[in-house]
Amino acid sequence: MAEEAAVRAQADTVRRLKQDKADPDEIAKEVAKLLDMKAQLGEDEGKHKFVLKTPKGTRDYGPKQMAIRERAFSAIISCFKRHGAEVIDTPVFELKETLTGKYGEDSKLIYDLKDQGGELLSLRYDLTVPFARYLAMNKITNIKRYHIAKVYRRDNPAMTRGRYREFYQCDFDIAGQFDPMIPDAECLKIVHEILSDLQLGDFVIKVNDRRILDGMFAVCGVPDSKFRTICSSVDKLDKVPWEEVRSEMVGEKGLSPEAADHIGEYVQLHGGLDLIEQLLQDPKLSQNKLAKEGLGDMKLLFEYLTLFGITGKISFDLSLARGLDYYTGVIFEAVLLHQENEHVEEPVSVGSVAGGGRYDGLVGMFDPKGRKVPCVGVSIGIERIFSILEQRLEASEEKIRTTETQVLVASAQKKLLEERLKLISELWDAGIKAEMLYKKNPKLLNQLQYCEDTGIPLVAIVGEQELKDGVVKLRIVATREEVNVRRESLVEEIRIRTSQC
Amino acid sequence: MAEEAAVRAQADTVRRLKQDKADPDEIAKEVAKLLDMKAQLGEDEGKHKFVLKTPKGTRDYGPKQMAIRERAFSAIISCFKRHGAEVIDTPVFELKETLTGKYGEDSKLIYDLKDQGGELLSLRYDLTVPFARYLAMNKITNIKRYHIAKVYRRDNPAMTRGRYREFYQCDFDIAGQFDPMIPDAECLKIVHEILSDLQLGDFVIKVNDRRILDGMFAVCGVPDSKFRTICSSVDKLDKVPWEEVRSEMVGEKGLSPEAADHIGEYVQLHGGLDLIEQLLQDPKLSQNKLAKEGLGDMKLLFEYLTLFGITGKISFDLSLARGLDYYTGVIFEAVLLHQENEHVEEPVSVGSVAGGGRYDGLVGMFDPKGRKVPCVGVSIGIERIFSILEQRLEASEEKIRTTETQVLVASAQKKLLEERLKLISELWDAGIKAEMLYKKNPKLLNQLQYCEDTGIPLVAIVGEQELKDGVVKLRIVATREEVNVRRESLVEEIRIRTSQC
Repeated sequence: MAEEAAVRAQADTVRRLKQDKADPDEIAKEVAKLLDMKAQLGEDEGKHKFVLKTPKGTRDYGPKQMAIRERAFSAIISCFKRHGAEVIDTPVFELKETLTGKYGEDSKLIYDLKDQGGELLSLRYDLTVPFARYLAMNKITNIKRYHIAKVYRRDNPAMTRGRYREFYQCDFDIAGQFDPMIPDAECLKIVHEILSDLQLGDFVIKVNDRRILDGMFAVCGVPDSKFRTICSSVDKLDKVPWEEVRSEMVGEKGLSPEAADHIGEYVQLHGGLDLIEQLLQDPKLSQNKLAKEGLGDMKLLFEYLTLFGITGKISFDLSLARGLDYYTGVIFEAVLLHQENEHVEEPVSVGSVAGGGRYDGLVGMFDPKGRKVPCVGVSIGIERIFSILEQRLEASEEKIRTTETQVLVASAQKKLLEERLKLISELWDAGIKAEMLYKKNPKLLNQLQYCEDTGIPLVAIVGEQELKDGVVKLRIVATREEVNVRRESLVEEIRIRTSQC
Repeated sequence: MAEEAAVRAQADTVRRLKQDKADPDEIAKEVAKLLDMKAQLGEDEGKHKFVLKTPKGTRDYGPKQMAIRERAFSAIISCFKRHGAEVIDTPVFELKETLTGKYGEDSKLIYDLKDQGGELLSLRYDLTVPFARYLAMNKITNIKRYHIAKVYRRDNPAMTRGRYREFYQCDFDIAGQFDPMIPDAECLKIVHEILSDLQLGDFVIKVNDRRILDGMFAVCGVPDSKFRTICSSVDKLDKVPWEEVRSEMVGEKGLSPEAADHIGEYVQLHGGLDLIEQLLQDPKLSQNKLAKEGLGDMKLLFEYLTLFGITGKISFDLSLARGLDYYTGVIFEAVLLHQENEHVEEPVSVGSVAGGGRYDGLVGMFDPKGRKVPCVGVSIGIERIFSILEQRLEASEEKIRTTETQVLVASAQKKLLEERLKLISELWDAGIKAEMLYKKNPKLLNQLQYCEDTGIPLVAIVGEQELKDGVVKLRIVATREEVNVRRESLVEEIRIRTSQC
């Protein structure tokens, strides 16, 4: 269609201008023109070819995927509850200005809602900023809560590796003024428990502290104004080699080569208590107030982690930076190590599966009087974990049930629909999970086949003779054994045979 | 601020033009101007007074509300699973065109996302259209599933009565070609089970059939082209009296007074099998093919509901119309009857708490070849139910726990932080739900008070002497009883005392 071709051509123009980093005003003008053309086109929607799909970067979860997802959620929720957390929920969108200025360079990935009159809204980008808004709004200074919900990022999706535009986060946070590093250590213990429990293979939890990073930048000669942007560069070290990061620092961000090289020496360091002690003796770092504070706390953290018996999986890593602006102290990130799982032919590269840190200033940004509430928290990235579990299950022989049905109510002869309806109603009312085929006269074979296909363990068969005798024939699908059970004992018999407690 | 005043004035202009039903072009022009002014204003955000709130029509759920919400969800999910349903999930937004043309007059309430480049998206308005899209996209012709998720409507919120812009729907649907009215009857059984289980007081489930309505419109002399809009008018009968509905039909919608009066006679009818029999004998209705089909199926439905023993709460009601366009057969809606609950001082008026019906054409709208998949389903409106449960709980004395913590790890003397950390780590690793205060040297009294406040039943107290003796002092909060338990038996002792099975 001519109009559509014109829109595509205009879209190309906009793309080219953006690539060329043209004058923003000119780009804005062409974007406006493009939107206009699109709106025009939208008016004759009848002519469009309708595309049957979910939006880019999103997916449906069918019953099988949901069964896997619920397994993972259940492990995570158990852990959060084991640590005494309450649960909260917040709306999927926030006032646009609630999110403004909280995410640094990532802000461009926020989904805005259309202005349809009324407030300007955006979809939440994470659960941390809404949590801080919730605390400030309700003047809560002390809470340990979890929140499991979807968040939205207009990022480039890489769905085979579990990167989506709509994805779940499972967050656990501790807010309140407490003695140093006790809640921080608990967050790391939680990551350790969940990753162990889910049996995702070997992992390491990298730990660093924003104060150590900032101190390091200072002693390397990075000007204050460049701390955050240089921090963003360091954050890329898990994906690109040092040489590239260095050239970004020096080339794009105007850092002196000496400062960059100095940073380069620090960021290759990782270790445990030894490294902390070594840096506490470092002639330059030890003179920096921030770095010293951070290193002191890091030492305390490692002492607590030793008591928890989990230092084997913890690595103090000076290259860990974390992208988000709001962190103020300890930061951490868990990565799965290269898997060589017998069940998986090609191991998936999944990167980070959990991350978090301390953000003592965020709640204060929402409080009219700037009152601070110190917070530390962890976010589990369920989609990446889910990708692994899904691929593992596909490769295995395990058959996963998607319902919990205990018994199929079946009939051996025709004209027994009414009797089936009466019996199934009795079972439902007694709390038994029961199904029947929605046919007037289903064949017995089809009914048995349905049980085989869906994993229903029992069949309650009604027939003329059984009705006369006041019994129901109970068939155990796995063994094909059949027993007559008195109607009044049927519920009890089903309960025992499906061993519910 | 001058700019803000100007924006408000412009907003008033737009509102006035809309009220006066001015020329759409003129309205559009003024709206564009308003958006422009708003955008300008947005550019100096620093000047704004920041408002700390959730978006209009939305709310947070704190730990107490979540505890109530989870109780209601758990009753609903149990019921859905009892009926053998699988579970699915779909994205919170869909392609805009997926939702287009599915909701009739309600389409104006859909939230659109801003065009930020890429696909045009809208937040889902219900779970039914995404379900139909899912079936068509995956070529599924046969499934029984539930889906519990938030949906979005830019409606006028009435939050005290449980009406929100973001709210949960709990949907159960049966898709597939089956013998008539068996799945339909199960949907009504489900509504009956859930409302009984939640003990919301007396209720009635109104039932009708779109075919009976359409047949009735035909015999009353409503032109075909006016069926849907007259149906919308009938739908208002639960809120406004007949006289108003009649004047809308005649005045706004141009129906003849005779036709309206004729409809008026029918829509006051409600009853059970008797009424169905009576209408099957009605000289006009019985001559109409659609009405006859609908009445025949309604009779069958009542026979099945009799077998389920639930006709006492079912009312065949000719005034029930349901707003949405996509229904094709049976429709139903559950309303709570006026409550006189001793726990509630002022009864909340909540209206409909569940609704649904048959939509045999919706999946075909998504299939490239128009292949139909007959569907019937029910949606439980959890927010209204939740409003009642919340008010009831507030009025009662019941103290609701928001955590499941079994034991607080405490110390009686100073300098025992390390010992507490070691013990709590052991308990966590054994699956015990345990907390401790995040202080180096908390006072025993504060630790005991924390248990009182949060309902933790046990305290495990470490002290110098206990450490020497290899025991832990276990205190039962309710009775203040204290027993020494050998460290290696502690986990078992806590399990027994909190009677987990």
